[in-house]
Amino acid sequence: MSTPVILDCDPGHDDVFAIWLAAGHPEIDLRAITTVGGNGRLDQTTYNARVAAHVAGIAGVPISPGAAGPLVRRLSTAGSIHGENALGGPELPVPSVAADPRGAIDLIRDTIDAAEQQVTIVATGPLTNIALFARTYPDRLSRVREIVWMGGSTGRGNVTPYAEFNSWLDPEAAAIVLDAGPSFTMIGLNVTHQALVTHDVLARIDAVGNRTAAFGVELLNFFNSTYETDQGMPDAPLHDPVAVALVAAPGVVTTARTRLDIELHGTETAGATSVDLLNTLGRAPNANVATGIDAGRFWEMVEEAIRALS
Amino acid sequence: MSTPVILDCDPGHDDVFAIWLAAGHPEIDLRAITTVGGNGRLDQTTYNARVAAHVAGIAGVPISPGAAGPLVRRLSTAGSIHGENALGGPELPVPSVAADPRGAIDLIRDTIDAAEQQVTIVATGPLTNIALFARTYPDRLSRVREIVWMGGSTGRGNVTPYAEFNSWLDPEAAAIVLDAGPSFTMIGLNVTHQALVTHDVLARIDAVGNRTAAFGVELLNFFNSTYETDQGMPDAPLHDPVAVALVAAPGVVTTARTRLDIELHGTETAGATSVDLLNTLGRAPNANVATGIDAGRFWEMVEEAIRALS
Amino acid sequence: MSTPVILDCDPGHDDVFAIWLAAGHPEIDLRAITTVGGNGRLDQTTYNARVAAHVAGIAGVPISPGAAGPLVRRLSTAGSIHGENALGGPELPVPSVAADPRGAIDLIRDTIDAAEQQVTIVATGPLTNIALFARTYPDRLSRVREIVWMGGSTGRGNVTPYAEFNSWLDPEAAAIVLDAGPSFTMIGLNVTHQALVTHDVLARIDAVGNRTAAFGVELLNFFNSTYETDQGMPDAPLHDPVAVALVAAPGVVTTARTRLDIELHGTETAGATSVDLLNTLGRAPNANVATGIDAGRFWEMVEEAIRALS
Amino acid sequence: MSTPVILDCDPGHDDVFAIWLAAGHPEIDLRAITTVGGNGRLDQTTYNARVAAHVAGIAGVPISPGAAGPLVRRLSTAGSIHGENALGGPELPVPSVAADPRGAIDLIRDTIDAAEQQVTIVATGPLTNIALFARTYPDRLSRVREIVWMGGSTGRGNVTPYAEFNSWLDPEAAAIVLDAGPSFTMIGLNVTHQALVTHDVLARIDAVGNRTAAFGVELLNFFNSTYETDQGMPDAPLHDPVAVALVAAPGVVTTARTRLDIELHGTETAGATSVDLLNTLGRAPNANVATGIDAGRFWEMVEEAIRALS
Repeated sequence: MSTPVILDCDPGHDDVFAIWLAAGHPEIDLRAITTVGGNGRLDQTTYNARVAAHVAGIAGVPISPGAAGPLVRRLSTAGSIHGENALGGPELPVPSVAADPRGAIDLIRDTIDAAEQQVTIVATGPLTNIALFARTYPDRLSRVREIVWMGGSTGRGNVTPYAEFNSWLDPEAAAIVLDAGPSFTMIGLNVTHQALVTHDVLARIDAVGNRTAAFGVELLNFFNSTYETDQGMPDAPLHDPVAVALVAAPGVVTTARTRLDIELHGTETAGATSVDLLNTLGRAPNANVATGIDAGRFWEMVEEAIRALS
Repeated sequence: MSTPVILDCDPGHDDVFAIWLAAGHPEIDLRAITTVGGNGRLDQTTYNARVAAHVAGIAGVPISPGAAGPLVRRLSTAGSIHGENALGGPELPVPSVAADPRGAIDLIRDTIDAAEQQVTIVATGPLTNIALFARTYPDRLSRVREIVWMGGSTGRGNVTPYAEFNSWLDPEAAAIVLDAGPSFTMIGLNVTHQALVTHDVLARIDAVGNRTAAFGVELLNFFNSTYETDQGMPDAPLHDPVAVALVAAPGVVTTARTRLDIELHGTETAGATSVDLLNTLGRAPNANVATGIDAGRFWEMVEEAIRALS
Repeated sequence: MSTPVILDCDPGHDDVFAIWLAAGHPEIDLRAITTVGGNGRLDQTTYNARVAAHVAGIAGVPISPGAAGPLVRRLSTAGSIHGENALGGPELPVPSVAADPRGAIDLIRDTIDAAEQQVTIVATGPLTNIALFARTYPDRLSRVREIVWMGGSTGRGNVTPYAEFNSWLDPEAAAIVLDAGPSFTMIGLNVTHQALVTHDVLARIDAVGNRTAAFGVELLNFFNSTYETDQGMPDAPLHDPVAVALVAAPGVVTTARTRLDIELHGTETAGATSVDLLNTLGRAPNANVATGIDAGRFWEMVEEAIRALS
Repeated sequence: MSTPVILDCDPGHDDVFAIWLAAGHPEIDLRAITTVGGNGRLDQTTYNARVAAHVAGIAGVPISPGAAGPLVRRLSTAGSIHGENALGGPELPVPSVAADPRGAIDLIRDTIDAAEQQVTIVATGPLTNIALFARTYPDRLSRVREIVWMGGSTGRGNVTPYAEFNSWLDPEAAAIVLDAGPSFTMIGLNVTHQALVTHDVLARIDAVGNRTAAFGVELLNFFNSTYETDQGMPDAPLHDPVAVALVAAPGVVTTARTRLDIELHGTETAGATSVDLLNTLGRAPNANVATGIDAGRFWEMVEEAIRALS
């Protein structure tokens, strides 16, 4: 039986692949897509989510916008990586899919209320929406099976030396969600930097030959180009679908049960995810943290999901 | 024409008087009461709000619970001031008024959507609910006329040397609301410590002679007693109704247009409200901060409101 | 028997009066003057200390410069109060008194080593020098009778809403000295703002009629003028000599034994002196904090000291 | 011509090898050893420095104790790594070398004043002494050629997830020294974790066959054992002599000119060394940070230095 999933995202190139993997993988039952300001402004990330659904022929999955920016801090988007419209590269079609008017928080609540079983939340942007949901509807948290987040790092960051973008943008939201109750899994740069868009990956996706693949290759070429310029990585890491892969196929991503704390007060390190792998602090474990990935299987999953779409 | 008001509170003795002043004053049109964890746990503050309405015969005003605790930090209630049930003193009747099942955030939204004009939010507890509302429904903020908050101080605090309880409990929420858009007014200890429950005040309220007054006097005797023990003040300051008074009768509370910043990162001073009355920092004003009160008129307003109730 | 005193200062107008009170009061045996960057740059405060000694005919007291700026933070001087040369108003004579080449830290050490009894340190600037001394020569701290500091506040500050200049400039130094071992007394704005340079005070000092008085009146007229412009106080508070007065004449300044913590991490409140007068935090007392002053006696002491000088 | 060096250390096992490498390498002219509280209490680290000199027959190099603990924070020693006496393993001989009575700060000053050229400071403990020296004698900083520090990390830490011990213990001192003026080089865990005490290394040192080597092997066996237990590393990293090696033989350690900031305010990350290798923050470079090591040459240098000793 497939897993009911709400995907909270801020597309963004890699978020688009997360949507496609969630929609195209047989073990995922994608129930709702919610968007948040992050890689781009909220209007952009919502539009881009609709584009992702339109291109891939994903129908019947409501898409609704949530928080325009972080809980406490100010929004700063990632234009140097994702381009001015947060989805640089291909010409974007006008999506036929409309936005759901309920708003993300209500859509998450309704989706959970309508589900016959616990729902998994996969988040691939700043955790603002999930934090608002957790604080507004704490009674619904028992209906959340787990929260799987692409964000953070066990080592170095990407937007500051020690902070990854999603965590840096809204560390308070991350701290809220981490502590909210449901099982929490963090997939950080230490693992997503092993999911690299190599020439071989590009060739395989291109060979799928459908509309989604063609659009995807345009996205990946742009993404590789900005990652090379901005981060010195000619093969970009495709962060976000790794979180979907962990839910879709246990074992593709390995995790450790450990202690995770979010830095809220540092002047140089705000948003750093302090992962105590050696338990030097002696605190109780509170999270699963990704430690490895079978990159070969991951890319097979992405390829197959794209093939299953239009 | 009276002012439509949503009262967000955490009763607590002084919150009860805020409810009564809002319900009993002719210039206030009390549309909804929302509750938050603060002076007591959320179940207690919600129950106590219902008790306050029940005792005073306030009917037709929906009461709905919101956030159980602060946005980011942990709840710590004020038992040494308000007693174990957050409303120590009188025996509490079983309230005939039920809680509205919508939840505070939805009730605030619905109340604003239903109003024919802008609505004023008066908040007398930590600003958690209002922060969640602001981040979840930013499109509704243009329908908020102003937000008037009892919290903070221009000088010393009460729970730590520099922080007042409502601000200390959820400084992140205060920072969010301050910056959310609507005009923001802070009424801090520097002013509420002039609204003292003297013997004369007690005698005047007692002389009103109705059920509300009798219940109120029991509340105030308890409040005076804990304030003497805990804060060395034999005449307790009745903080919360001062925020209602400012809305009901302009001029009773004087304010200054100035700069307000909330301390989010201090280890000794978290929640301190940094009010730059002399503009030594040179930043743009962003708030109205209460600087004085006509205590005589304030107590007349409280007395008259109680007289107007049952 | 008079009290041997080392005066660490950053002249500055009020520091000059602290030097004069220490040199002119019979109960103080002024052994050394050390200077620190604060109200002005170190070269200025050192020059100004020499000017203060020269004008008043103070001979035989070594004067030596210490730290140019705060321990960890950057120097920011108080030009809007003290003028460009840190001693605005009178024309400054070229002082006949030379600076001692040893440096402040070594002079403090030598003075303590040479004393036949414990020495009192009176500090009227940022505590940088005393912190360096405490960490470099911890074995000498048992020879320090007490450290009396003009700095901080139990209420509002002057350079930011909650921080006084000396504390704000070097909070880490204040935290080090507070915790170093010797008895620590803080005299903050809550008390020094009662030592106001009124017209009557000016007239009395003027009437002393010697060179020191004439120079002093010029200083005070300038000081009153900048305080009116910058802080809205036409009668300036003469902060620094209050610390000397406390040592010279017990009883002139009243103190409470209480808990003091220095805010090191706040973004809005760095340097705030958190004084827990009501012991709401339940920590052990660690300081004496000034709570009141007999302003009449204080000004008599200042007047008499000036009369005793040249 | 060899480089005049002051070695500031907190022995500790790896500090002992730093002393030996500095004393035994022909390109280093070791002028003074100063000690600080860190791996052990100050009395222990001073004693252990004397033991290191005694065992190796190092004569004529003054050894003097400095700060007992960090500038602002509290001392916490590293007993789980270095044992109760900070030099676990061998029986410690009573050293024939006495401590110099001047104290570390004065010894550093005198050594610099006596040198015919600029002096290099190598620090292998918390930077407390060097910070005190920099703030007390800023005029001597132009006589310091460079400051080379073993501390920090470009990636993960060892005492908390993001902080290395020397940096975590006294981050304020590190920030002071980094900003003091002389060229600053940081050698962090990212490099020292490549200087591993393998079986081969142990065998080679053992084969040297002199007293120093025998004592050293006992030290390294203990060090390997505690590193395995505490950090899960059976081959311990011999951090401190890497800093000496960088000075002795340019090229053994590679560095990058980059931006370094010390986290002073984080609750989870205090002491983290934020190294902006990709210049994502756009700040001016202010430090050299070690990025690689020729471990083979490093161990040859250590072996040869030990052979040159007694």
